[in-house]
Amino acid sequence: MPLKKKPVTGMKDILPAEMQIRDYVTGLIKETYKSFGFSPIETPCVEHIENLCSKQGGDNEKLIFKIMKRGEKLNLETAQSEADLTDSGLRYDLTLPLSRFYSNNANNLPTPFKALQIGSVWRADRPQRGRFRQFVQCDIDILGEASCLAEIELILATTTLLGKLNFKGFKVRINERRILKAMAEYCGFPEDQFDLVFIILDKMDKIGWDGVKAELIEAGFSADSVAKYVDMFGEMEASEDPLGYLENKLTGVLAADVIGNLRTIRQSVEATKAADFELVFDPTLVRGMSYYTGTIFEIEMPEFGSSVAGGGRYDKMIGKFTGNDTPACGFSIGFERIVTILLENNFQVPGAAGKKAFLIEKNMPADKLCEVLKEARAERENGATVQVALMNKNKKFQKEQLSKEGYTEFKEFFNR
Amino acid sequence: MPLKKKPVTGMKDILPAEMQIRDYVTGLIKETYKSFGFSPIETPCVEHIENLCSKQGGDNEKLIFKIMKRGEKLNLETAQSEADLTDSGLRYDLTLPLSRFYSNNANNLPTPFKALQIGSVWRADRPQRGRFRQFVQCDIDILGEASCLAEIELILATTTLLGKLNFKGFKVRINERRILKAMAEYCGFPEDQFDLVFIILDKMDKIGWDGVKAELIEAGFSADSVAKYVDMFGEMEASEDPLGYLENKLTGVLAADVIGNLRTIRQSVEATKAADFELVFDPTLVRGMSYYTGTIFEIEMPEFGSSVAGGGRYDKMIGKFTGNDTPACGFSIGFERIVTILLENNFQVPGAAGKKAFLIEKNMPADKLCEVLKEARAERENGATVQVALMNKNKKFQKEQLSKEGYTEFKEFFNR
Repeated sequence: MPLKKKPVTGMKDILPAEMQIRDYVTGLIKETYKSFGFSPIETPCVEHIENLCSKQGGDNEKLIFKIMKRGEKLNLETAQSEADLTDSGLRYDLTLPLSRFYSNNANNLPTPFKALQIGSVWRADRPQRGRFRQFVQCDIDILGEASCLAEIELILATTTLLGKLNFKGFKVRINERRILKAMAEYCGFPEDQFDLVFIILDKMDKIGWDGVKAELIEAGFSADSVAKYVDMFGEMEASEDPLGYLENKLTGVLAADVIGNLRTIRQSVEATKAADFELVFDPTLVRGMSYYTGTIFEIEMPEFGSSVAGGGRYDKMIGKFTGNDTPACGFSIGFERIVTILLENNFQVPGAAGKKAFLIEKNMPADKLCEVLKEARAERENGATVQVALMNKNKKFQKEQLSKEGYTEFKEFFNR
Repeated sequence: MPLKKKPVTGMKDILPAEMQIRDYVTGLIKETYKSFGFSPIETPCVEHIENLCSKQGGDNEKLIFKIMKRGEKLNLETAQSEADLTDSGLRYDLTLPLSRFYSNNANNLPTPFKALQIGSVWRADRPQRGRFRQFVQCDIDILGEASCLAEIELILATTTLLGKLNFKGFKVRINERRILKAMAEYCGFPEDQFDLVFIILDKMDKIGWDGVKAELIEAGFSADSVAKYVDMFGEMEASEDPLGYLENKLTGVLAADVIGNLRTIRQSVEATKAADFELVFDPTLVRGMSYYTGTIFEIEMPEFGSSVAGGGRYDKMIGKFTGNDTPACGFSIGFERIVTILLENNFQVPGAAGKKAFLIEKNMPADKLCEVLKEARAERENGATVQVALMNKNKKFQKEQLSKEGYTEFKEFFNR
């Protein structure tokens, strides 16, 4: 029986044309983030199943590719459930492995530590157009920095990168988990129901305020709380200074540093940004992951229909490993989303040098072949790309194929 | 219960110091191989279990990390054996996925196609010092090129890369599977026992010719065959022209093009090489993988105790996918081996620019902070790496830590 030619379900082969763009974006990411003092690190793609299933990953934990135990550890006879068969799995994000990495290596790392990770992650999502079960994530994180300097540097680094990729006029939306919570508390929602309130609030973009109101009532919340809640958003929207509004309204409910931090972040980013974008406070921004403890942020490009980056502060995750909480804040860009946008816009990688193809006749004597190879060597040493290939019978077709790969110069060598 | 801090057994966290070297080597690989016309591609890390277990991988197939079926496909009740629980696994090399890739995409690729792959592979080897269960392989392959131009280009590209990494005085050993077979046939070994003969021959380095002789006899081969076989190697060693010796001796047994090809490869490589090495015909070179069909080669650096690259021709593998054989030849460098050697030799990445750390006092007012950030931006736009961090209480220790990360300039900013 012949072997299987297609990749496994939901994963893809990447051909040279796309790889060229991926390599270019990766290079730009490394160059830009390194200039901000982020150091590349790597963690294994395989992670302990206990860590992967520790409730840090929310719904992603349902999508884990689990790896079977090996040798004597795998006992089919006594296995009662799936859990008995597995001891590891493929990581579903880079944040959990980073937290493990930091817990394991903090003694050998500076404080604060600025990490850059580019790596594949796996999620067994339902296959659909443009979404794959293996995809690259690209995260920067600052560990050990409690002040909002972390947020400022993360936002400046990420937006500088997007600017270098010629993205313009985008929006960085920012909010604070503690504001979300204080508002819900102020309006009298029960604390154990906050997550449900936020899930409904998160739909505002799609269903509008009337929809949010209706769903909150339907979920059984008191009409008073719902009215108070929706009114607050209305008043903020009408206000010249929503942060000032919250500062007054939530006195005593909201921690004292929250509003000041957001103001510092906004002022510093706006004054020193190196790209064309706007930083806006958006009290309706929720973001899914339950591990966020402070600021949350997202980059939106309306013309591309979805967010291209997101992140936030997660000060409680490293403590799950070490017992001691460590301040942590990260920003993840949607690498695959960005590559897709560039591909769809026929992005040309800048400075891709002209490629040369040397086509040689079959059965060329060794001494003549050496002359061709020497010429190729000299060209390569001068920075050119030189493909040396035998001339096919259908030379025209061969050249067409090579042209598609970016070869612009052809030189033919014959035995005579 | 706290989460697990260590990586899974046999895998490792990679810290910034090692990442710097890995990134440098990766960059040099891409630059060098691209100049030879190799195009980067990628295949998924997860591969069909049928492909992984198709006998192409030899002993590596025993070391596969298998991934569990998901959802309804996983049925513990009816599962009789391990095989019923899995439908995919992590790739153990890049050659099998490349063959699948080529089978799947040949219509969209030029002929010949020159592929460059850099990617992780996984093998559940017994953990031991310096060997890991996840490691990076780096392969170049030429598909669709039957002539020895493939071997020449592969050897020139690989040795040019090693030269750029300052490796000198190494040896490229080359042999041909068809010579190994013709010699065994000529000496009267039974064809179905060739592999055993080669396994014993492969030990020559360690046990010497007396050892090889003894083991062959012990394995039950006729004393005549063994004597004839070992004598041939002796005569070749004594000969000025071992290839000429074989050409005479094996007339009629050995395909006509084999010796001529090896001569062309040697002449072309020696005449056009861009690094300091020697190409030597080594009739004792065996190489493990059973899929090789023609030339096999290996790069040896005596001072580092092991081979740093290996490859060969495997003209029958793609046919396992498509039903039609396609010429294929590849060369894989030992990426991890090379990184280890560079680390052990305190290799300094060339041109690593001086890094600057801006240390700022706590609670700096936003307008003052903006001034610092503007200065950082200007430095970064001039190509510098600038880390902006809060001053720790123990400033001396903080600077020491940063020095270890390559920071050479420190600038302090105070609120007053």
